[in-house]
Amino acid sequence: MVKADAYGLGAEPVAKALRAAGCETFFVATLDEGIALRAVLGGGPEIAVFNGPLTGSAGEYPAHGLTPVLNDLGQVQAWRRANAPAMLHVDTGMSRLGMTARELALFTDDPIPLVGLVSHLACADAPEHPLNAVQLARFAAIKAQFPRLRASLSASSGIFLGRDYRHDLVRPGAALYGVNPCPGTPNPMRQVVTLKGKIVQVREIDRGESVGYGAAHVMPEPGRLAVVAVGYADGWLRAMSHRGSGAMAGRRVPLVGRVSMDLITFDVSALAPGQVRPGDTIELLGAGYGVDEAAADAGTIGYEILTALGARYHRIYR
Amino acid sequence: MVKADAYGLGAEPVAKALRAAGCETFFVATLDEGIALRAVLGGGPEIAVFNGPLTGSAGEYPAHGLTPVLNDLGQVQAWRRANAPAMLHVDTGMSRLGMTARELALFTDDPIPLVGLVSHLACADAPEHPLNAVQLARFAAIKAQFPRLRASLSASSGIFLGRDYRHDLVRPGAALYGVNPCPGTPNPMRQVVTLKGKIVQVREIDRGESVGYGAAHVMPEPGRLAVVAVGYADGWLRAMSHRGSGAMAGRRVPLVGRVSMDLITFDVSALAPGQVRPGDTIELLGAGYGVDEAAADAGTIGYEILTALGARYHRIYR
Repeated sequence: MVKADAYGLGAEPVAKALRAAGCETFFVATLDEGIALRAVLGGGPEIAVFNGPLTGSAGEYPAHGLTPVLNDLGQVQAWRRANAPAMLHVDTGMSRLGMTARELALFTDDPIPLVGLVSHLACADAPEHPLNAVQLARFAAIKAQFPRLRASLSASSGIFLGRDYRHDLVRPGAALYGVNPCPGTPNPMRQVVTLKGKIVQVREIDRGESVGYGAAHVMPEPGRLAVVAVGYADGWLRAMSHRGSGAMAGRRVPLVGRVSMDLITFDVSALAPGQVRPGDTIELLGAGYGVDEAAADAGTIGYEILTALGARYHRIYR
Repeated sequence: MVKADAYGLGAEPVAKALRAAGCETFFVATLDEGIALRAVLGGGPEIAVFNGPLTGSAGEYPAHGLTPVLNDLGQVQAWRRANAPAMLHVDTGMSRLGMTARELALFTDDPIPLVGLVSHLACADAPEHPLNAVQLARFAAIKAQFPRLRASLSASSGIFLGRDYRHDLVRPGAALYGVNPCPGTPNPMRQVVTLKGKIVQVREIDRGESVGYGAAHVMPEPGRLAVVAVGYADGWLRAMSHRGSGAMAGRRVPLVGRVSMDLITFDVSALAPGQVRPGDTIELLGAGYGVDEAAADAGTIGYEILTALGARYHRIYR
């Protein structure tokens, strides 16, 4: 899965790395993403587009060697004229994209060279949720109607539900990028993103002085603040106000006050003055505080921490 | 203010429009933004950079005709060698960037050709907050020490606190882009952003069926859903789950279930089937539901709704 700019990490370098590691099938969400990815990867690997052909766009798919995922009878109808490969998306309980049971009963695929059957789990990150087994059974029944098609049900979390959920093709995204696909248990995957913010200014502050917008944080003691050039315009969500933290010199330093557009402020009173200087960096994401920990502080999921990462960072790929 | 890519709206077209309207002074947050903006605007207009010169970057400012905002004695010291114009940022109660009172007492500007004195209000969107008058008085006292400098205290909300807060130069950003600078009272500024999402699929759904991740929304009645190709990767914040809404055919349609990365789902049961087809659009931001209303639903401020707007939208400037 390299949709959404490879979950915010950069579709070009990520897709090239995955290709070099042997990946032969890539999924994106939109036609534009597919066209851009084909230019990056060249001919060879399969690129499937989840949104499928919308009005007037069917011709773009064969022109760029892209495989649409057909989501409803209208898309099937539009695709019949193309005489080109497609995957079929069947809904088994997500109620988002994919053919409903009603539509599937009306479907005949004769003229379309189908190359895959996909569905998507709604609750894969909650192994005990009863909908998982329901979706698995529904998928098995539909799969029996299309025995020659490659079948794909699971994304990152589904892969960890066990062998039954893996079928012919899995679609890992978040797990590749360090999000824990098994919330509540130790992360089986490695943290891959390190994010650092640069300190613009270090300041002494008196007891009782307020910090940032709304004067919403008041210093309980005199202290020292480090102002870092990262804000919600960089995707450090405003929901992190008063709650997030960073790492510096082996300690965690609390984010104080509200996240502003271009800046966040950390209370670095616990560090010695010489340990915190303008130009130094504070680690925002790393081994000890990864995307899932940041997400918990922001009241969201690691996926959004990744996709929110902004355009002003200098990015280094290792 | 055209920092943060003109609050997410596109620094290049926005700055060109502001320049054509007579703007002669632009502010950005970072050196990179300043360099890019100079390339867009050419010579002439003044471009000031809030973050000021960080280690090793001082030479870039005169090279690109940029005016740094000096935030502390370290930056002042670094800038003395440049012998080039700068603005001085004094903190009057925001406790973010800017010289503290202690630092200001040690400051002598003799070798630096200062061209501006700036500070920033922490509570300008709350006119009754006592910190506004405190900051105004502190700024007046500092301004008296620098009588020949252009003085600038107010951004969008401060402008509306009255004439006393306007001094020689104001720094509107959010207000220009449709955010209400006076929360709780009618917006004196026009809504400037319209955002539409394209419907990928329309589906019938039975009573009791669940929608989206976590099966978190269950249909209380049979209905019809429209799946729209916008998600949190496009900046439609995941905090909008179960809470946001869109507009279609003159009605408001509720967002149901969780916002996913590339898709959101609306309950369009109230509309006739012929009124909702794949390829149609649902209005996400517009005259009746602007950035402030969306922000209220997402638990944030209009500023973040704007800066979060993603890269996958087709953008049209009128």
